[in-house]
Amino acid sequence: MSGMRAKIGLVIFGTDTPAGKLFDLVLIYAILISVGAVVLDSVASLHTRFGLWFAYIEWFFTLLFTVEYFLRIYISQRPVRYIFSFFGLVDLISIIPSYLALLITGANYLLLIRMIRVLRVFRVLKLVRYMEEANVLLRSLYLARRKIFVFFVTVIVLSFIVGCLMFVVEGPAHGFTSIPKSIYWTIVTITTVGYGDITPQTVLGQFIATVAMLLGYSIIAIPTGIITAELAGEIGRVRNEKACQNCGRRSHEADSLHCRYCGAGLAGEGK
Amino acid sequence: MSGMRAKIGLVIFGTDTPAGKLFDLVLIYAILISVGAVVLDSVASLHTRFGLWFAYIEWFFTLLFTVEYFLRIYISQRPVRYIFSFFGLVDLISIIPSYLALLITGANYLLLIRMIRVLRVFRVLKLVRYMEEANVLLRSLYLARRKIFVFFVTVIVLSFIVGCLMFVVEGPAHGFTSIPKSIYWTIVTITTVGYGDITPQTVLGQFIATVAMLLGYSIIAIPTGIITAELAGEIGRVRNEKACQNCGRRSHEADSLHCRYCGAGLAGEGK
Amino acid sequence: MSGMRAKIGLVIFGTDTPAGKLFDLVLIYAILISVGAVVLDSVASLHTRFGLWFAYIEWFFTLLFTVEYFLRIYISQRPVRYIFSFFGLVDLISIIPSYLALLITGANYLLLIRMIRVLRVFRVLKLVRYMEEANVLLRSLYLARRKIFVFFVTVIVLSFIVGCLMFVVEGPAHGFTSIPKSIYWTIVTITTVGYGDITPQTVLGQFIATVAMLLGYSIIAIPTGIITAELAGEIGRVRNEKACQNCGRRSHEADSLHCRYCGAGLAGEGK
Amino acid sequence: MSGMRAKIGLVIFGTDTPAGKLFDLVLIYAILISVGAVVLDSVASLHTRFGLWFAYIEWFFTLLFTVEYFLRIYISQRPVRYIFSFFGLVDLISIIPSYLALLITGANYLLLIRMIRVLRVFRVLKLVRYMEEANVLLRSLYLARRKIFVFFVTVIVLSFIVGCLMFVVEGPAHGFTSIPKSIYWTIVTITTVGYGDITPQTVLGQFIATVAMLLGYSIIAIPTGIITAELAGEIGRVRNEKACQNCGRRSHEADSLHCRYCGAGLAGEGK
Repeated sequence: MSGMRAKIGLVIFGTDTPAGKLFDLVLIYAILISVGAVVLDSVASLHTRFGLWFAYIEWFFTLLFTVEYFLRIYISQRPVRYIFSFFGLVDLISIIPSYLALLITGANYLLLIRMIRVLRVFRVLKLVRYMEEANVLLRSLYLARRKIFVFFVTVIVLSFIVGCLMFVVEGPAHGFTSIPKSIYWTIVTITTVGYGDITPQTVLGQFIATVAMLLGYSIIAIPTGIITAELAGEIGRVRNEKACQNCGRRSHEADSLHCRYCGAGLAGEGK
Repeated sequence: MSGMRAKIGLVIFGTDTPAGKLFDLVLIYAILISVGAVVLDSVASLHTRFGLWFAYIEWFFTLLFTVEYFLRIYISQRPVRYIFSFFGLVDLISIIPSYLALLITGANYLLLIRMIRVLRVFRVLKLVRYMEEANVLLRSLYLARRKIFVFFVTVIVLSFIVGCLMFVVEGPAHGFTSIPKSIYWTIVTITTVGYGDITPQTVLGQFIATVAMLLGYSIIAIPTGIITAELAGEIGRVRNEKACQNCGRRSHEADSLHCRYCGAGLAGEGK
Repeated sequence: MSGMRAKIGLVIFGTDTPAGKLFDLVLIYAILISVGAVVLDSVASLHTRFGLWFAYIEWFFTLLFTVEYFLRIYISQRPVRYIFSFFGLVDLISIIPSYLALLITGANYLLLIRMIRVLRVFRVLKLVRYMEEANVLLRSLYLARRKIFVFFVTVIVLSFIVGCLMFVVEGPAHGFTSIPKSIYWTIVTITTVGYGDITPQTVLGQFIATVAMLLGYSIIAIPTGIITAELAGEIGRVRNEKACQNCGRRSHEADSLHCRYCGAGLAGEGK
Repeated sequence: MSGMRAKIGLVIFGTDTPAGKLFDLVLIYAILISVGAVVLDSVASLHTRFGLWFAYIEWFFTLLFTVEYFLRIYISQRPVRYIFSFFGLVDLISIIPSYLALLITGANYLLLIRMIRVLRVFRVLKLVRYMEEANVLLRSLYLARRKIFVFFVTVIVLSFIVGCLMFVVEGPAHGFTSIPKSIYWTIVTITTVGYGDITPQTVLGQFIATVAMLLGYSIIAIPTGIITAELAGEIGRVRNEKACQNCGRRSHEADSLHCRYCGAGLAGEGK
């Protein structure tokens, strides 16, 4: 029994064996197809023609993911830890909605089911599990977390002040009906999105808008600067771990087997 | 008396003692709630229903901040210096409007009061005080100040020239009613905001707009480059201050207590 | 015969001899003129007046490029390799459409021909051949390929989740008619393009939009950070290859012949 | 005579003496006021009320700048060189339009005069002369010129291809009336400006638009990367020129007189 558990464990959690790799690939395609069905089902014309097929696909994958979920709990050395881990919760959330849709019936069930169905899109998050390369990016973001927080607080404080000014200057007559709406407009402007659903009409309002745009245009440089500085350091550190033992030069990619300068074999994580 | 002053001083200005930390936290929440009340009060539907409650909240916090302001003056070793410091002025500005609203009455008082009320949002600026991490960012901006000034002058000169060209090419018939409005359009375009409230209609106008966009698209690289270069230097300098005395490696975070490479204790600001 | 082949080969493939340089220049102008004719022919007013001339230009260059294509095959040492190389395929694709337009006749031929004609614009891609400087950029992108892939997957997953949320929150009544359309809106927002053809109307929708914008605004920092970090390394490496043998200083441009610090001659790719 | 010439020369060209500095300041204000008059004169309501005053201001400064121009020629050691230098030409162009407006009279003179008047805004370019700090930025741009050229060619080729595709997919019915207009739309989209005056209506068109946006969003990283990498190198080089002779540390600002680490005096441009 324990032998079979270990075997299934290797297939489901392992990524080195051929069986484990195949399982991961199948899972990725299953996630993509089931999400694709939800997305296409939302198009009115496709729903009327293929609605039943989409329902079949949905239930097929829901059952498949349910079996997979319980297998993961069964195999896991520490089931409780898995259940409350990030991916344990994502796995659970991605199967619950379909079952919930069976229980809740009534007059306004349509909207609710749609809401619940949509949540299954979180299955896509599972894909993240398959990416090892994301680590360098995440570590850089982690190192920069405090500076990014300061940046966001600055942007939000700025948005409140500019939003209030615009509410007073332009007023409800020009679409700035309340301070929250003015703040929404300010963020649309500062982030340089610029829908144009609300635009300043008065000369003073346009002047403040101009200043806000130039501010936003410059402020965008700050997170870029922070992340670039951290990333450059992080990439440099990763590259410098590996030095060629023949010519001594560094800066090889993580998966290089030969020195890019002299062609000698690389020993890997040396020194 | 002096003992009590010192005690209150520790609570209000100090950030290391539990009492000082608690006071800071309470102050942040008080600022957020009072700003929130102003913002929500501006929504017409909420004003008619909860207008009185918002007024109560406003006055409660106005009195609280007034007491805090005078306490700060009373405690401060150099009261005049505090009053004319950046935060002293912000503290004053954030309580004045509510009192001013009492004095000014008349026909067109409504708009004035609204204007005054809005100013109290500057209370939010107080939040900046609680951020030490902002220093690296500010120092980088300070080092880059001259280059940023050159950049802004270039952008503004460019906006004037492109604005004038567009005024002549498109003219009042296509929404470019005056040079100031054309300059407003140019900045909307160069910063890549692009509301679409004014758009070029002639072929020549669209060609100039295209060039302006590509210029703006490239020019955004300059402040990013400036700030990144300064930030990378600044972060590197901060990290390099701290060297592990065991393995000699650097690049630790400012609050690290152990070397991230060999685990040995870090002495802090060494050599 | 072989001597003539070698001679033509020098003209067509060579870039060092005066004849080879002239051939390349003529080719670039020929490509620009033929593409220009297709572009201008699409303007209705120009088509009615100069349509015949554009057709003459088109056929003249089609025949020219056909002769050039067969010459390249004839001259090439390994014709099959050339035919299936990137530029071999581009060369073929850029002449096929004109001939295809002769064969396909019928009721709906107009649209097809237009489609085919437009493909000839790919001729412009030939221009890339003439740029050596692109190498540093491409190598940086190649080194960053995995991180860029992770970034794109993250953006797409995010777009799916935000798109679904907006579909549920705003619904078909406010323009979010299906999940694919909501995803389209999300990408328009996250990339800060912001057409404004679809905009959130509900308070909750505007709040989600605000969060999406701030996310997009920050996320833009990640590819910039990745590419900057790689580019800085790559440029540094290229510059450092060349050291002045007189004063020992580095960081010269790739085509410098003299040291920018002491003026001594540079030996090139030394050490 | 020669003594007086030298004296005036010191005032006009010099920037070190008090008189030279005052002259430069007066000139900057004169430029700003004369440009401001042109800009404000373009506002219809202000033109009807203050039109005459704006004309007086215009002529006052035109005469002033004329005197200044001839003084510069008179004083200059090599008058021909000055006349054909960048600023010599700018100085000339900034005074010509006002005189030209006197000569050209007739039916459609209004538009012409406006065009000519607007050209005087180029006077603002004179401001550039007063900025020394721009040098580091310009040198970085110069070092990056080839990479920026490659980048622009790539963006333009891409815009042509996407523009053609959108013209075929969406067609004149949805606002994509010609390939030039489609290319205009593509650049509006790729640069993330997004006016929304033309938007894709078909599903395929929206898909291509989405890909174009993501491309544009990523491509913006390339010029930023190029300029950041060059700037970081350039700033580093400038900072490293100056080393403290006491503690040996580098990275001081160009105008620092004392070492920022140990406070010792800096000798300046030392090895």
